[in-house]
Amino acid sequence: MFKLYYAPGTCALASHIALEEAGAAYTTERLDFKANQQNSPEYLAINPKGRVPSLVTDRGVLTETPAMLAFIAQSFPQAKLAPLDDAFAFAQAQAFNSYLCSTVHVAHAHKLRGARWAIEESSFADMKRKVPQTVGACFALIERDMLRGPWVMGEQYTICDPYLYTIAGWLEGDGVDLAALPKVADHRKRMSERPAVRKVLAEEQG
Amino acid sequence: MFKLYYAPGTCALASHIALEEAGAAYTTERLDFKANQQNSPEYLAINPKGRVPSLVTDRGVLTETPAMLAFIAQSFPQAKLAPLDDAFAFAQAQAFNSYLCSTVHVAHAHKLRGARWAIEESSFADMKRKVPQTVGACFALIERDMLRGPWVMGEQYTICDPYLYTIAGWLEGDGVDLAALPKVADHRKRMSERPAVRKVLAEEQG
Repeated sequence: MFKLYYAPGTCALASHIALEEAGAAYTTERLDFKANQQNSPEYLAINPKGRVPSLVTDRGVLTETPAMLAFIAQSFPQAKLAPLDDAFAFAQAQAFNSYLCSTVHVAHAHKLRGARWAIEESSFADMKRKVPQTVGACFALIERDMLRGPWVMGEQYTICDPYLYTIAGWLEGDGVDLAALPKVADHRKRMSERPAVRKVLAEEQG
Repeated sequence: MFKLYYAPGTCALASHIALEEAGAAYTTERLDFKANQQNSPEYLAINPKGRVPSLVTDRGVLTETPAMLAFIAQSFPQAKLAPLDDAFAFAQAQAFNSYLCSTVHVAHAHKLRGARWAIEESSFADMKRKVPQTVGACFALIERDMLRGPWVMGEQYTICDPYLYTIAGWLEGDGVDLAALPKVADHRKRMSERPAVRKVLAEEQG
């Protein structure tokens, strides 16, 4: 039995969907970011980074979305959430997820989390102004070169899909025009129709 | 036969060391960042992100350090560069590498790459001033909670070690006091004595 710590609207959604798709036995615990619960002593004892997601397992706590997604895929091989028997194909899926975490999510984070990297209000405003351009450039590359369709890796639904879906859900808020991203928009729609996604969203938004 | 595209002083060093430790057959190609070779049409055809590292394989090109490191470990299992038979331990190693790429490297990048996320010179200067604090906080967490010793994952040398070594090599330039990080400093010294590391550094710095 796993326990997933999440907050609505965060990248924890990717792991939440993956757990559901895998048929894993898990419970969830929602953190209240408005109350800064992610930095409470209780939560910092679980994840000293003060971020979500965290996945509590009987072996210990895992953090970092790409690592958790690969772990879920490897722990439930019958769900076929990653090409586990093909190191190159697995690496391609991991490269996609690594790009999302280290470049795309980071570009997005400059909208509201400028205080992570600067001190002055003027810098925060400057960063925020550039987000439509930086996130837009990331998604233009995803649209052009990465998203094979119908799923990220092609015919097989993988751990890349809930992660892309999660970050693509921030596009309107980031000021990126979805009309220029037909494959991404189509992927988002296709994801939203999956029973696992509906179930998880009903919980997170409930 | 693999071909690694790298530039000296970049995170490509981690994959370079891992290839050497794995006993892989590989060649290297050095890019001249001063001449902006990473954005040449020839290189963008290999990696449209215009970054290093890229690993050319007979199946195609791989990018993103965490994905490449896991691929190298899986492709050369006899080198025992990751706990491949233990999904939880593998996820812990991947979580460490994911933290390096998405948080620690990103914190460092705000020193010289502010133009990725902002427009004004004043913002770049502001970001740069915060780097000792942000990178210092990341490494304080690594020192306290993550680096088990003697290697990152404990007794077994893994793909986490060349990656930590690579980013820890930037600490002085980032204005972080290594005296406060005895385990990190010890790890860096132990790494620098490995024959594979010496060989790779001799090439990259030659």
